[in-house]
Amino acid sequence: MSRLFVRTLRDDPADAEVPSHRWLVRAGYIRRVAPGIYSWLPLGLKVLQKVETVVREEMVAMGAQEVHFPALLPREPFEATNRWSDYGANLFRLQDRRGNDMLLGPTHEEIFTLTVKDMYNSYKDLPLSLFQIQTKYRDEARPRAGVLRGREFVMKDSYSFDIDDEGLNASYQAHRDAYVRIFDRLGLEYVIVSAMAGAMGGSASEEFLAVAANGEDTFVRSPGGYAANVEAVRIAVPDALPIEDAPAIAVVDTPLASSIAAVVDLLNAEHAQDHPWTADQMLKNLVFLVTHPDGTSEPLAIGVPGDRGVDAKRLEAAFEPSVALPFTAEDFEKYPSLKVGFMGPVTATGEAVLGEESTSGIRYVVDPRVVTGTHWVSGANTVGQHLSGVTVGRDFTPDGVLDVADVREGDPAPDGSGPMQLARGIEMGHIFQLGRRYAEALGLKVLDRNGKLVTVTMGSYGVGVSRAVAAVAEATCDDKGLSWPLALAPYQVQILATGKDASVFEEADRIAAALSERGGLDVLVDDRKASPGVKFADGEILGMPIIVVVGRGLVDGVVEVRNRATGERREVAVADAVSAVLELAGR
Amino acid sequence: MSRLFVRTLRDDPADAEVPSHRWLVRAGYIRRVAPGIYSWLPLGLKVLQKVETVVREEMVAMGAQEVHFPALLPREPFEATNRWSDYGANLFRLQDRRGNDMLLGPTHEEIFTLTVKDMYNSYKDLPLSLFQIQTKYRDEARPRAGVLRGREFVMKDSYSFDIDDEGLNASYQAHRDAYVRIFDRLGLEYVIVSAMAGAMGGSASEEFLAVAANGEDTFVRSPGGYAANVEAVRIAVPDALPIEDAPAIAVVDTPLASSIAAVVDLLNAEHAQDHPWTADQMLKNLVFLVTHPDGTSEPLAIGVPGDRGVDAKRLEAAFEPSVALPFTAEDFEKYPSLKVGFMGPVTATGEAVLGEESTSGIRYVVDPRVVTGTHWVSGANTVGQHLSGVTVGRDFTPDGVLDVADVREGDPAPDGSGPMQLARGIEMGHIFQLGRRYAEALGLKVLDRNGKLVTVTMGSYGVGVSRAVAAVAEATCDDKGLSWPLALAPYQVQILATGKDASVFEEADRIAAALSERGGLDVLVDDRKASPGVKFADGEILGMPIIVVVGRGLVDGVVEVRNRATGERREVAVADAVSAVLELAGR
Repeated sequence: MSRLFVRTLRDDPADAEVPSHRWLVRAGYIRRVAPGIYSWLPLGLKVLQKVETVVREEMVAMGAQEVHFPALLPREPFEATNRWSDYGANLFRLQDRRGNDMLLGPTHEEIFTLTVKDMYNSYKDLPLSLFQIQTKYRDEARPRAGVLRGREFVMKDSYSFDIDDEGLNASYQAHRDAYVRIFDRLGLEYVIVSAMAGAMGGSASEEFLAVAANGEDTFVRSPGGYAANVEAVRIAVPDALPIEDAPAIAVVDTPLASSIAAVVDLLNAEHAQDHPWTADQMLKNLVFLVTHPDGTSEPLAIGVPGDRGVDAKRLEAAFEPSVALPFTAEDFEKYPSLKVGFMGPVTATGEAVLGEESTSGIRYVVDPRVVTGTHWVSGANTVGQHLSGVTVGRDFTPDGVLDVADVREGDPAPDGSGPMQLARGIEMGHIFQLGRRYAEALGLKVLDRNGKLVTVTMGSYGVGVSRAVAAVAEATCDDKGLSWPLALAPYQVQILATGKDASVFEEADRIAAALSERGGLDVLVDDRKASPGVKFADGEILGMPIIVVVGRGLVDGVVEVRNRATGERREVAVADAVSAVLELAGR
Repeated sequence: MSRLFVRTLRDDPADAEVPSHRWLVRAGYIRRVAPGIYSWLPLGLKVLQKVETVVREEMVAMGAQEVHFPALLPREPFEATNRWSDYGANLFRLQDRRGNDMLLGPTHEEIFTLTVKDMYNSYKDLPLSLFQIQTKYRDEARPRAGVLRGREFVMKDSYSFDIDDEGLNASYQAHRDAYVRIFDRLGLEYVIVSAMAGAMGGSASEEFLAVAANGEDTFVRSPGGYAANVEAVRIAVPDALPIEDAPAIAVVDTPLASSIAAVVDLLNAEHAQDHPWTADQMLKNLVFLVTHPDGTSEPLAIGVPGDRGVDAKRLEAAFEPSVALPFTAEDFEKYPSLKVGFMGPVTATGEAVLGEESTSGIRYVVDPRVVTGTHWVSGANTVGQHLSGVTVGRDFTPDGVLDVADVREGDPAPDGSGPMQLARGIEMGHIFQLGRRYAEALGLKVLDRNGKLVTVTMGSYGVGVSRAVAAVAEATCDDKGLSWPLALAPYQVQILATGKDASVFEEADRIAAALSERGGLDVLVDDRKASPGVKFADGEILGMPIIVVVGRGLVDGVVEVRNRATGERREVAVADAVSAVLELAGR
């Protein structure tokens, strides 16, 4: 410890948002160089390397082959797949000395596809899974929480290549199984949730989320086992109702009521019915401008039940790489038929105002709950008026369905198993069935059994390796510092030699040597000239799972063995110290 | 082999300049993605990882601690040390989404200095040596020879921090010793040569060059053991001569002779002397424009013996990061007193034309051989005239000495041990005594024994890790393919199962399993459905050190064991195959 390049800090870093970030910095595991860009100091690097080893072992065990591709990449392949523009500001772009456009790879689908195309040409060569553990770059708008969301980070990315869908399913499942083993070995509590494929394209996709109160991702779970990232939730869709049961349209004067709540209050006050009016009987209409990566844009109106809003993350995921932003006052000026606060699909006289075939011409999509035969209170497209009884399939027909409304704790699960729970997590792994998008864009074809050229189908799979260090720290740290599981700790044992007597230091070294020799353990001896208090506190901050105190007790022939995670302590005879530690370490 | 992601190529890559490049590509070890940017395929990556392991083990053994710093770095620290501009076009620069200037690290002196400054504050913390094995970026003007000189490459860089020069010397020596062990383990034939520190600043500096006919670096060796990179050679300086022995200046009419050779011919024809006139009695004067990174520039005249030119690499190294380019016709127009072909330090009437105090005002430096008391034939600064007997220290005094003339095979060595030999090599390692340049620029000071703040002194040390793969390949390959030493081979043994009989494949697998189990060897079985000829040829291209052929001989109970490097083959009984291979592998 007296030679180790580490210093613990008394104060939290100013930008620390979550405990793992605070402790990794305070314990001297990582150091910030720029926003979202960190150095790994000796202790942090040891944990990172242990995570890498777990990931590498499991990838090799599933039959994937390791390669290492460059981080600095030419523009052309990313142009062919549109990712040069689709990635937007998240992509680090640069030019080399000859003015060639280049980028820092956010993931490597293109280059793997081209390399396989370059080398393989027959179905006999497949299936193939390649992986790398490599540094990735994304110019995040909001890098946060230390290495939890960085701009330079270590990722295991792998890619599978198959001749057909059945092969892709098998490769996907093999990765899924390997990921289960990886995250089990990392000791993380995690859930596997359905996910959106996002800018990656493709179809089936699942995320491995470490359950964490400070996680950036929200997910839902049902009693029956349904689990999905909130972006990917497909809500329970009610059955259509018979149109003939719907009431007629009626005009309701709502002179001052331009909010849902105000309309509900007014209805209950002036148009009381058997059951009180509630917000979920209202139709809330919102208008967005959807801007595409090529700079073109188009308006879009979304109708959702009045008790819900549009969830920003779900909306973002639905349109990625395009961006949907709420209409500004300026945007509204271009559509005089839209009356803010009083918008709706139709007027009192039955004229369509929202929809591709309407006076505004604005495409109109609705929440899945706005199903045929349901009737709603909606704006009348006249200031000061609403309409009741506006019925789907009779008074208007939406242009489509879009599932982006808020998801709430207690919403019915799509598997019908009951109310959904909401929780938060950290995305640790993501597996995608890419399908043929990349192979088609880049021309990766092989000869099939019949000598016919067919496009290869691909999968893409990622594990956040540096992020895993933070996720494990987040799951295991407490209010005193880090607390590593044995499998990932930089050292399994830290021996605190306290006091000034030379015998204390000698005994510490002797125990360390014995642990290393007999148990193959990595042992850190705190041999500094520092007070016992400093050593105790640093020991807790650094978080080695087993702490041995060799100090005052030594004159009585005892040392103390502590379990960092549980706080358990026991005194053991010096002669038994080594075996007590080996037992605790499971050796 | 039937599942391994590898394909051997029949043809050389179009841009292959050297054998290692040709074979690494043809054997499917690396793949070009962009100029100077390569992917490491499974076999190549295994070699790279073995080199990394050797480097890591020796760095840890010498007491250095491993860290991992980012490749994407902010501009500011590089501004403080001037490297942002000094690195010129070799630096990859970019901006992030907020417009912050960033760069891809070519080396990491700045960030290491700042991190140590952030964590340490006392002489008690020193000495300290930190290392990383990390991806580096340099936008080389001429990336070449595959991974021998790439734009993205893997380097081990380390930095030492000491309180005083004595400490720096010890850290430097410890690195030097570790490098000797590293390059010994890699099996490279190498020399340690004096080197220029270049853009890194600093003083003492040595390079480890792998001896290679295709190397980019030229170095000299003397019989007495002097060795230096050609850029760093300090030539043997002759003693000054008594000025009174020098002949008087005499005008020689040389109407048509504006070249050294023409002047020599004319002198021998019209002014014969005891010994014929030779080019080394002439003084060749060349004028350059030296441009600094800040854009300013100044002229410089260099006088060298007439039988030599100025060596472009030595000149470049002498001025780096400034650039010296020969005067253009346009440049000469600004100095009418300079008569191209007839330039010299003085006129026939003794007026100085070159030198800070001369009519031109151009600084005039000379080769170390142009020593006081020597006399030369030089231009008379009049078209059609030269002067003989122009004597240093009598007729002119140079502004300084600059040792940048051509170095030739047979030149006397500076250690007086005889003629120098010239040879070529690949720069594998470089060790620098940086001194206090970086610590001063970035304010790294610690308290010394007396409580006084002193600036830390640093060393910087690099090993080209990816380059080492190419250097070893270059040293060991032959006209049939790669040929790895046991310590670095992706697999130590390749078993060729030739023929169609199932017993051949079973026996190959059995031998492979036994070698792995009994000797811990990595074995690659060529189990493809391919002809023996294809397997033999691929076996030689791939270059595993031991090849076992299990084929036709099997019916007679024999297999063949081949040594790839020596070509030796011997038949052994199947029962003895495993022990024969283990013996060859030194197990």
